[in-house]
Amino acid sequence: MRAKARAHTNIALIKYWGKRDEKLFLPTNNSLSMTLDQFYTETVVEFNPDLKQDKFILDGIEMNPEETAKVSRFMDKIRRYTGQSHYALIDSINHVPTAAGFASSASGYAALAAAAMKASGVSFSENELSIMARQGSGSASRSIYGGFVEWQKGEKEDGSDCYAVPILEQGAWDLRVLSVEVTHEVKKVLSREGMKRTVETSPFFAGWLEAVAEDLVEAKAAIAKRDFIHLGETLERNALRMHATTLGANPPFMYWQSSTVKVMEAVQALRENGIHAYFTIDAGPNVKVVCQPEDEEQILDALSELDVVQNIYRCKVGPGVSYLEG
Amino acid sequence: MRAKARAHTNIALIKYWGKRDEKLFLPTNNSLSMTLDQFYTETVVEFNPDLKQDKFILDGIEMNPEETAKVSRFMDKIRRYTGQSHYALIDSINHVPTAAGFASSASGYAALAAAAMKASGVSFSENELSIMARQGSGSASRSIYGGFVEWQKGEKEDGSDCYAVPILEQGAWDLRVLSVEVTHEVKKVLSREGMKRTVETSPFFAGWLEAVAEDLVEAKAAIAKRDFIHLGETLERNALRMHATTLGANPPFMYWQSSTVKVMEAVQALRENGIHAYFTIDAGPNVKVVCQPEDEEQILDALSELDVVQNIYRCKVGPGVSYLEG
Repeated sequence: MRAKARAHTNIALIKYWGKRDEKLFLPTNNSLSMTLDQFYTETVVEFNPDLKQDKFILDGIEMNPEETAKVSRFMDKIRRYTGQSHYALIDSINHVPTAAGFASSASGYAALAAAAMKASGVSFSENELSIMARQGSGSASRSIYGGFVEWQKGEKEDGSDCYAVPILEQGAWDLRVLSVEVTHEVKKVLSREGMKRTVETSPFFAGWLEAVAEDLVEAKAAIAKRDFIHLGETLERNALRMHATTLGANPPFMYWQSSTVKVMEAVQALRENGIHAYFTIDAGPNVKVVCQPEDEEQILDALSELDVVQNIYRCKVGPGVSYLEG
Repeated sequence: MRAKARAHTNIALIKYWGKRDEKLFLPTNNSLSMTLDQFYTETVVEFNPDLKQDKFILDGIEMNPEETAKVSRFMDKIRRYTGQSHYALIDSINHVPTAAGFASSASGYAALAAAAMKASGVSFSENELSIMARQGSGSASRSIYGGFVEWQKGEKEDGSDCYAVPILEQGAWDLRVLSVEVTHEVKKVLSREGMKRTVETSPFFAGWLEAVAEDLVEAKAAIAKRDFIHLGETLERNALRMHATTLGANPPFMYWQSSTVKVMEAVQALRENGIHAYFTIDAGPNVKVVCQPEDEEQILDALSELDVVQNIYRCKVGPGVSYLEG
């Protein structure tokens, strides 16, 4: 009736951008990510027959009814799936600094799904776990696994073939990610809303779907061969393409700020000096720079000198979900 | 045998981006511009039976064989069309500061075409003049007219229906353009090359063609009603869409610099404060801000405060080609 799980956040190298089903979190395209060691969520779920409703504690603070209702709707899906009937105490600690530019929803829902499924007492496969996590937040489906992970969009309407699969384990390729924080500002267009507006209004969305399928093939080939330059060129191109779609939306919007572009320029300048650094950007202004271990220090030094940079967080390839005592 | 003409530069509100014929400068889409009063070229052409080759003087300096050959190839087209057989002396003065971010090719080829056609002694229509200017530089086709101008892409393979038409005369709507210079740097990807790479490799080019057709309809409706906000929203959206296509190219490229985005942010901030300012950007880092006369001073003040701004040039709606004495 009680379980504790840890899940790590992940960074998409081939982006999840567009839903084919808003309710079931079914994407329009496959995506590919690297799980990160640095940022994670630990969550305890305890089903308790004495509770009259779910209780949600985040970072030691009991959440308000609105936040709790959101998590409770997710718990309802777990209860329906597992046959568990009791309400639960959910106690979660987020080791994901908001400023680092990672949504905590990926690690958050992956850890919650894992702890809740385990606590329910039923046995379940990793596919089932990925599907459950996906229904909290799309990218959470990928945080089930460590290393490099592909989230398959699936074809079925009920989403039963829409889950992540591991494509290269954590220890197999030592890449690094520098998460470059340029602002504390809250983004103006949330990713959920931005994705929706793009699918509905951008003349570039059809081109995105074509391009992302090609980029995915390239990225997987590069990972299979551990070809970093090939992977880097592909991931940077894919990020630019994702952001291009938002410029075409109506009304248009842009996640970049001038400081974002300054970091992009610095990464391009590093490459002109022969250093293999490539950037990717999610639905916000911060930049993630992907590199190999031997270049990390030099890239860190160069980016630290930029006046627009607030903080740089260093990440390695991280592990998948684990279950903990306590 | 001798004529002098003046032509002004223009700024595209709906962008020319993509060629269907590289040699004849036939575009993939209609575009729409505003001719500007501030920047122009004055050119004298004199056909002279004593000359053994064309002679090209620009800003008082005789050009080298390479530059002269380029202009000579254009003069050959004029000679073929008019039946004129002599070589010419071409004496041209450019009142277009390179730093202002306007290509001098639009005013340059419009003035050259006008002076050369006139000097040839044949009579010609404005359509014929626009077609000739187009064969020097695509956007030169629009600089034949003052005010607001549409360049029709045409359907024919020989380009005989591909010329500009005036849609609103110079005095009919008093709009202003602030040309904001953020850098003296030469752009890395020339517009001709960038256009070609985009047409050939960007997954967004088909979407661009759809979108630009819609944007053109909106822009013309806005101009007909003198609806500035409608025009402003349309022109800014169209510029963002043009630039989005370059992000999708392979390899991707971007004309913006961080300073470009800083000006874009400032324009958006002005709008949030109720001031009607809209930006457009050509194939380079500088930004043009379109506004109404009553807001010009306030916008000028706000943009002048930005540390990335080097210079701001003020333009009004300008006239079409004129023929001068001397």
